[in-house]
Amino acid sequence: MPLGERPGDERSETKYCGVETDFSNDMPLVLNFNIHGGFDFVVAPLMDPSYRPSLIDHSSKEGGALPFASSDLVLSPSQWSGHVVGKISSWIDLDSEDEILRHDSEVTLKQEISWASHLSLQACLLPSPKGLSCANYARCVNQILQNLTSMQLWLRIPLEKPDDDSNMGDVDHMIDSWELWNSFRLLCEHHNQLSVALDVLSSLPSARSLERWFGEPVRAAIISSNSFLTNARGYPCLSKRHQKLMAEFFNNSVQVVISGGETQSMHSRVSSSHEDNDGVNRHPLRSYLDYVAYLYQRMDPLPEQERFELGYRDYLQSPLQPLMDNLEAQTYETFEKDTVKYLQYQRAVSKALLDRIPDEEAPNVTTILMVVGAGRGPLVRASLQAAEETGRKLKVYAVEKNPNAVVTLHSLVKLEGWENVVTIVSSDMRAWVAPEKADILVSELLGSFGDNELSPECLDGAQRFLKPDGISIPSSYTSFIQPITASKLYNDVKSHKDLLHFETAYVVKLHRVSRLAPSQPVFTFTHPDYSANKRNDRYKKLRFEIPRDTGSAMVHGFAGYFDATLYKDVHLGIEPSTATPSMFSWFPIFFPLRTPVCVQPGVPLEVHMWRCCGSTKVWYEWCVASPTSSPVHNTNGRSYWVGL
Amino acid sequence: MPLGERPGDERSETKYCGVETDFSNDMPLVLNFNIHGGFDFVVAPLMDPSYRPSLIDHSSKEGGALPFASSDLVLSPSQWSGHVVGKISSWIDLDSEDEILRHDSEVTLKQEISWASHLSLQACLLPSPKGLSCANYARCVNQILQNLTSMQLWLRIPLEKPDDDSNMGDVDHMIDSWELWNSFRLLCEHHNQLSVALDVLSSLPSARSLERWFGEPVRAAIISSNSFLTNARGYPCLSKRHQKLMAEFFNNSVQVVISGGETQSMHSRVSSSHEDNDGVNRHPLRSYLDYVAYLYQRMDPLPEQERFELGYRDYLQSPLQPLMDNLEAQTYETFEKDTVKYLQYQRAVSKALLDRIPDEEAPNVTTILMVVGAGRGPLVRASLQAAEETGRKLKVYAVEKNPNAVVTLHSLVKLEGWENVVTIVSSDMRAWVAPEKADILVSELLGSFGDNELSPECLDGAQRFLKPDGISIPSSYTSFIQPITASKLYNDVKSHKDLLHFETAYVVKLHRVSRLAPSQPVFTFTHPDYSANKRNDRYKKLRFEIPRDTGSAMVHGFAGYFDATLYKDVHLGIEPSTATPSMFSWFPIFFPLRTPVCVQPGVPLEVHMWRCCGSTKVWYEWCVASPTSSPVHNTNGRSYWVGL
Repeated sequence: MPLGERPGDERSETKYCGVETDFSNDMPLVLNFNIHGGFDFVVAPLMDPSYRPSLIDHSSKEGGALPFASSDLVLSPSQWSGHVVGKISSWIDLDSEDEILRHDSEVTLKQEISWASHLSLQACLLPSPKGLSCANYARCVNQILQNLTSMQLWLRIPLEKPDDDSNMGDVDHMIDSWELWNSFRLLCEHHNQLSVALDVLSSLPSARSLERWFGEPVRAAIISSNSFLTNARGYPCLSKRHQKLMAEFFNNSVQVVISGGETQSMHSRVSSSHEDNDGVNRHPLRSYLDYVAYLYQRMDPLPEQERFELGYRDYLQSPLQPLMDNLEAQTYETFEKDTVKYLQYQRAVSKALLDRIPDEEAPNVTTILMVVGAGRGPLVRASLQAAEETGRKLKVYAVEKNPNAVVTLHSLVKLEGWENVVTIVSSDMRAWVAPEKADILVSELLGSFGDNELSPECLDGAQRFLKPDGISIPSSYTSFIQPITASKLYNDVKSHKDLLHFETAYVVKLHRVSRLAPSQPVFTFTHPDYSANKRNDRYKKLRFEIPRDTGSAMVHGFAGYFDATLYKDVHLGIEPSTATPSMFSWFPIFFPLRTPVCVQPGVPLEVHMWRCCGSTKVWYEWCVASPTSSPVHNTNGRSYWVGL
Repeated sequence: MPLGERPGDERSETKYCGVETDFSNDMPLVLNFNIHGGFDFVVAPLMDPSYRPSLIDHSSKEGGALPFASSDLVLSPSQWSGHVVGKISSWIDLDSEDEILRHDSEVTLKQEISWASHLSLQACLLPSPKGLSCANYARCVNQILQNLTSMQLWLRIPLEKPDDDSNMGDVDHMIDSWELWNSFRLLCEHHNQLSVALDVLSSLPSARSLERWFGEPVRAAIISSNSFLTNARGYPCLSKRHQKLMAEFFNNSVQVVISGGETQSMHSRVSSSHEDNDGVNRHPLRSYLDYVAYLYQRMDPLPEQERFELGYRDYLQSPLQPLMDNLEAQTYETFEKDTVKYLQYQRAVSKALLDRIPDEEAPNVTTILMVVGAGRGPLVRASLQAAEETGRKLKVYAVEKNPNAVVTLHSLVKLEGWENVVTIVSSDMRAWVAPEKADILVSELLGSFGDNELSPECLDGAQRFLKPDGISIPSSYTSFIQPITASKLYNDVKSHKDLLHFETAYVVKLHRVSRLAPSQPVFTFTHPDYSANKRNDRYKKLRFEIPRDTGSAMVHGFAGYFDATLYKDVHLGIEPSTATPSMFSWFPIFFPLRTPVCVQPGVPLEVHMWRCCGSTKVWYEWCVASPTSSPVHNTNGRSYWVGL
């Protein structure tokens, strides 16, 4: 039984809640009891926990069956795969000093995973590494992962991290468990079937350190009944911080599992439930489940825009090449729907017109406005609306290189009766010989990273026909980056198994990422720019300080944004701290790193970015220079470039 | 004129000595003066150092030639390529805060390298990075490297490193220049045309920190005349430590370049030389050259074994698979020449015979000795010689699986008249049914890493026919590893551009490597071994501490060795600190790392190694777990294994 539904969840995964159980030979009973108790699945041990391979008498070959919880026939295949997560024996310790225990652990782990695969379970829960060292455990899991068809392995990790000011005496007990996870997954080379099940404890580490996990492949959160508080009416509830964390889990498709603690065995719970005070055959953890479902159901519905973008979350797209390729009608269609954007343009044009033409001259002066890259006309419309709004007279040239868009432009002009005001020019703005000079040049050539669709190069060509005191809208734009944890994106890039994809920037609706530091400005372009020796190549060195209470974190790459000044205080952008609300034309850009960089607390992350210009293309190169130097990515634009 | 010859240098590169010169428009004069002065090549600026691209008046298009030292025609192509190393303008500073200087530097660097390529120079000397940051310089060089056909770029690096106890105030001036190099080459991704020219200064850092450089691609050492001392007779000489360093350079094919300092210009030197006091037209740096040549000539000749192995230096070979493949006659031939090895075996058999058979029983008792893996008979011969030496009676079974070797064995036995003592068995020792049990089992199944040619598995099969109190020779063996800097080997592995080669161990005569810490034992096997549940898989966690005065260092992988106890105190091995002298049957083994690991001073290097056994193969897996976790290499033996 899912946790319930919220408006806007249609395209998201349904949220389920599981329960952790003890070992029982009677799997049908376990499943039946818990499913009827309201849970969607059980996390159940598959093998008798008293089994140790080294204690088996190899000389007696009889009764060779392993002590698994009865046969595969006791449940239907769909019950196994739909309702059971295998819980690997928690006694295993592959990094023990005891060689026999180590060997027993390896044999058992391999037997249990093999059995779970045989049952087509969707996932197995691996017990948390016992100590600080996990290399042998990781080596063994990595061997298993190579031959695993589709099952996920959830490595159980306690959600704990010492505070910076915790006393040092306790350091052995309180480690930053993220470090353990990081070491394990590096040894397993970011394998995409290895993920995390977080054990949520009664006290939580700092908010920033929690945030790290949302860039990691967390599939489940296990909450012990001990971590709940009791409210005034005696029902379980969670602290405010736990509630906030739960909301994050729901938003990030993390399955919730409730654990009854380890003191009470399943069987005693089964029998005690029969003797319940109120006489109802109620699951002993039902009130915890109800509370979790309540938390889920009371969440605010997703805003419409977020709902619209659900299908794009963390999906890598190649950036457009609008200069080399002609956009398709569908693309124009999508962008034209972004009313917020065109309203900003209209405001910018209005302000420019008011500044340029005093009220008393309004009837006599006609302002020459050129829309360069007019597409199917939205900026022409916005400009004309600005003229109407301000009572200024306008003559518009609509310059567009895509002949297909020009067809639509003509019909629009005819339809709207703009023939006397709008002149359509079917030409590349870099080549066009204008019959007169413009007062205002309006363009929308910006990409997610500002200059990445070659707005600078296009406007360099267009400023030839701008009057010396003419205005460019936008008048400037700046790109921004910030380091992020994004294991999902990293794995998607890695899956291509080539250099090219690691040296490409992607347009992507970032969702399961952790933003590790505020974004910083990278490249700025200003228009018009009449300076001598003007160049469009750029170089920027950036230094990010990841807040100390984050702990160590993995940087898989950089999220990129832009902010543009259209005219004076009218801006437009997607940089998170200043983003224009409800504008959807741009997703962020993502610059991946070939090898993710782990940053320790207090150590700065130094990043270098270049915008390089050749005769036929423009490209970015990037690298990390501290804490350690990465290779320079995309040298000479060998993998990713934008054609001129 | 080469520095002279030493016996044994035939197969090595001839040693040359160059001279650094100032800019001159008259290149033929510069070359002529220096070649006649005794030098083999000049390191000469190609372009007028006063040139700055930003000062060129772009409006006047006349006289567009760049200020290079005259045309390519002034020297013959062979003079250019054979005697000139291009010295890139030393004023360039690509990491300056000054954008114009940065841009001028980039343009100049690209123009000069392009000109040097046009002249087919073998190398260019790049000026040392000006500050601590070198990312933009490295980015630009990396761009150049992508399109460079065969020219080498020598990055000039001053040989300096602060002592651990140097006062902190001076830290800005005294950096560990290795770090600068390391950052630069990481940004350029270990490009194999990027190498180092070390500037040897008058004071040298610690011996251990110097040692690091011999695992790096150092192509040239530039010694300023200021770094020389003056001996009692007024001639230049070098300190003992400098002399030792020079010997290392000679041994590692590092070209020496003498630099006259920067105070005196070439032209004044040319003219002053004409007015020399003694009236002879002598090069002002001739006495420095003579001293360097003297240092070279007085070096000890290479030992015969080293001379024999010159051609194998740093050449990666795949380990043998003697169990799956049959060795060729040539291989037997080579191994049989290793008299030292067989003498050790003879000593071991003698001691065992004396221990086993008291003198009084010698005439009556016949010892059953089985040589398992007899090959073409060298161990049979060593055993019979031991019997003769000790006066013990021997019956020998020579078991060999290679039918081709058995042919030779038969003819040997006939030739030597051993028919009554030696029984030849053409069989795999793991399958053979012995007619009686052995007192002594002699084998030589060891690989460079001890157990890597599956000696454990073979002897497990053979110990069936050993008497309960029987002796195995060898009685035990242990493998060892140590971390090394080995950029040449790393690049050779990388050149294959696949995972497979990074997950393979290679047999290699290590030469241009830096051993960063003493080796440590890894896996030990003892024979016979009758313990229950005996297994041949192994796991070892190792912790290396790189001495602090080394500074930071790059670990490209691990050198592997073995040491075997043949019998009691008779051992055999290649572990450097205990290696058997003059034995040549084994080169070390090299386990590469997919991503080299940089280790900071005081931070331990934690390495994990596994020996894994499957039903048809045995393989190693390895990883680094500290300072950062690497992927586990060779999971499931996917890249490299030894067949059973």
